[in-house]
Amino acid sequence: MSTQGSLEGIRIIEIGTSVAVPYGCQILADFGAEVIKVERLGGGDDARTWAPLSGGISITFLSLNRNKKSVVLNYKDPSGAELLEELLESADVLVQNLRPGALAAAGFSWERIREINPRLVYVEMTGYGRTGPRSQQPAYDAMLQAYAGVVAMTGSDDGPPARVPLSMMDMGTGMWLALGVFDALRRREQTGEGTHVEVSLLQTALAWVNTPLMSVAAGGAVPERLGSGFRGNVPNGAFPASDGYVFLSVGNNESFYRLLDALEAPHLRDEPGFEDNLARVKNRHVVNERLSEATAKFPMDDLLQRLDRAKVPHSAVNTLDRVLADPQVAALGQLEDVQHPVLGDVTVVNTPVTFNGEYLAQRSTPPELGSDTAEVLTALGLTSEQIDGLLAAGVIETGTDRTAATEGANA
Amino acid sequence: MSTQGSLEGIRIIEIGTSVAVPYGCQILADFGAEVIKVERLGGGDDARTWAPLSGGISITFLSLNRNKKSVVLNYKDPSGAELLEELLESADVLVQNLRPGALAAAGFSWERIREINPRLVYVEMTGYGRTGPRSQQPAYDAMLQAYAGVVAMTGSDDGPPARVPLSMMDMGTGMWLALGVFDALRRREQTGEGTHVEVSLLQTALAWVNTPLMSVAAGGAVPERLGSGFRGNVPNGAFPASDGYVFLSVGNNESFYRLLDALEAPHLRDEPGFEDNLARVKNRHVVNERLSEATAKFPMDDLLQRLDRAKVPHSAVNTLDRVLADPQVAALGQLEDVQHPVLGDVTVVNTPVTFNGEYLAQRSTPPELGSDTAEVLTALGLTSEQIDGLLAAGVIETGTDRTAATEGANA
Repeated sequence: MSTQGSLEGIRIIEIGTSVAVPYGCQILADFGAEVIKVERLGGGDDARTWAPLSGGISITFLSLNRNKKSVVLNYKDPSGAELLEELLESADVLVQNLRPGALAAAGFSWERIREINPRLVYVEMTGYGRTGPRSQQPAYDAMLQAYAGVVAMTGSDDGPPARVPLSMMDMGTGMWLALGVFDALRRREQTGEGTHVEVSLLQTALAWVNTPLMSVAAGGAVPERLGSGFRGNVPNGAFPASDGYVFLSVGNNESFYRLLDALEAPHLRDEPGFEDNLARVKNRHVVNERLSEATAKFPMDDLLQRLDRAKVPHSAVNTLDRVLADPQVAALGQLEDVQHPVLGDVTVVNTPVTFNGEYLAQRSTPPELGSDTAEVLTALGLTSEQIDGLLAAGVIETGTDRTAATEGANA
Repeated sequence: MSTQGSLEGIRIIEIGTSVAVPYGCQILADFGAEVIKVERLGGGDDARTWAPLSGGISITFLSLNRNKKSVVLNYKDPSGAELLEELLESADVLVQNLRPGALAAAGFSWERIREINPRLVYVEMTGYGRTGPRSQQPAYDAMLQAYAGVVAMTGSDDGPPARVPLSMMDMGTGMWLALGVFDALRRREQTGEGTHVEVSLLQTALAWVNTPLMSVAAGGAVPERLGSGFRGNVPNGAFPASDGYVFLSVGNNESFYRLLDALEAPHLRDEPGFEDNLARVKNRHVVNERLSEATAKFPMDDLLQRLDRAKVPHSAVNTLDRVLADPQVAALGQLEDVQHPVLGDVTVVNTPVTFNGEYLAQRSTPPELGSDTAEVLTALGLTSEQIDGLLAAGVIETGTDRTAATEGANA
């Protein structure tokens, strides 16, 4: 069973590539919106070609574009611009992440968009924000992690800094974008007017460092790298097993003693500098080293059972293959197998909110490039002759037949 | 100038502690909702005592609870339960993160909540989700990072795994919670009924690993740790300066040659194994080592200027003190100084979405414990005699006078 979301009947035009805008619009599509992804001729969204591929299809694209339609058109051509204008007249929301100023240069400034459709919510996503000395610079997720202080904090204290190996700035920006759209749609109900919503990777990044940044602004110390550890209590972090790592956290001496017993190392409680949490925090290198010697004697699954019995809060340091096989993950039902027309069974991760116990509906897998061009233009009132004319003039592209493509028949 | 958000007139009861629920409700408060934080007697939200403190106030609490009211009441007492029931009658949303089942045990099951107010949106946040073998386990942000595969991927390839030193699971869950509330409020307009919304740290964590998890499920390799590097191109990551690190990313040979010239190391282009990106990816350890020798000769700011002139995408690996002093950050206006009644000037990070160029309003700093108990109960119709009676009976607490407290007059 799945549920539909409240955005049914809301039409969103996405002019978006890569991660942030496609993810934000996928969230809105999951919540029920009709998302029409307007893609450029000659390939569409860059992420369609990103490695790794599965059956010729980019996993990244696959993970960020479900429940959408794809329309390929060149809005820099006058007849293409006319089509985009008609789409905007029919829509509730426009979301775009072109270079700053590029859509305005193509004739679609915010002023013009308001003339076309004063009820349209217009969302602009940028890297560094609308203004300031870096507003025109290229911006990637990891670069913004570095810029906003995240890379400097991540990694071992005796090694170089590390990145967060996930698109936390991009995906976070997609989530803020979706929140901005929900808010702007409510505003529209209250005022009858659309709003210009802006989000950026840098603004998202500053939100992620909210608490430590406020601390430094208030005169606190600049956070140092602590590997898998934590400032407040020791031991806390990843410890080696003979075949992997486990994560554990000990908040007081009772729990510490239970841990030592579980590791068959009760003698460690008498080590100098191990006597209480404050001492262990001060001596964390030696505490962690001695504990690691103890944990490394056991295989991961044995260690996890010992920690469980000792009631020490813990987790496996799971690799993603273990995550896929995990019974708790299975119990939640968030990973769903869907049928993809080319790939067959595909495992997808549903949006992590349930409503009366139901996840949001997986209505369709990500669209082939241009698969909905003809249908969407027909619904705008174009005849098949007009569509053929636009096709011949190179203003639009229509859907690739994927089956044919895999047999080499596609241009 | 600031803007109000569309949730004005929406009343949210938050029974939340720590990070995820307070952050989610702060987002909703920023969007204009009236958030009444119901706290327990004898201290309230655990985060009120978390280090680091500034002027006796927890920075964590300060960063997650603005624009809210605080009411202290014991809903396990029959007259406290009656007050909570009246609050729920008056409210649009209830958000809670007690132990699974604890609120139901106190008399407020979802069935009972629907009887009290069928229009109420009920949001439940848990660690591992509502069901499954681990649903009753304690859950912390870093533990869920470990469980969902994030820790195993983070850190250097020649070192142990690391955590993401930010509350990405907690804060992400807060964002999903806010999205769930926006959706459920729209549903209520459509159906007249409240919805039971559920979010959890584990479900949020699985959403973060969306793309790599789909890749592994499709037969792809389990991601290894790459420090600050990236699978697709080399060099890409953090490189040492003489006084810090810089982040750079090179996508092709032209850009690589410009980088080498900027580093006064043009000879490196002739090194065996450096000839193109595929070769550099294969030989990334030696490429990164030789480049690090070159970058380490320059101070950070000199290096950044050289990269800028060479048009190599780059960023400082900023520490948070540098972030606070950064001109691009200043240009965005997202960091605001607000007046706190005890602390004076406090720098806060605004929610990273603007509407027609304006951030959401900072209406009030985080409340003192119980500062709004009397006002909220008076608005429910209680007389001051009744309030005094509840106070004397130990069912409620009213606001601490902070000025007095800092002089030692507070119990």
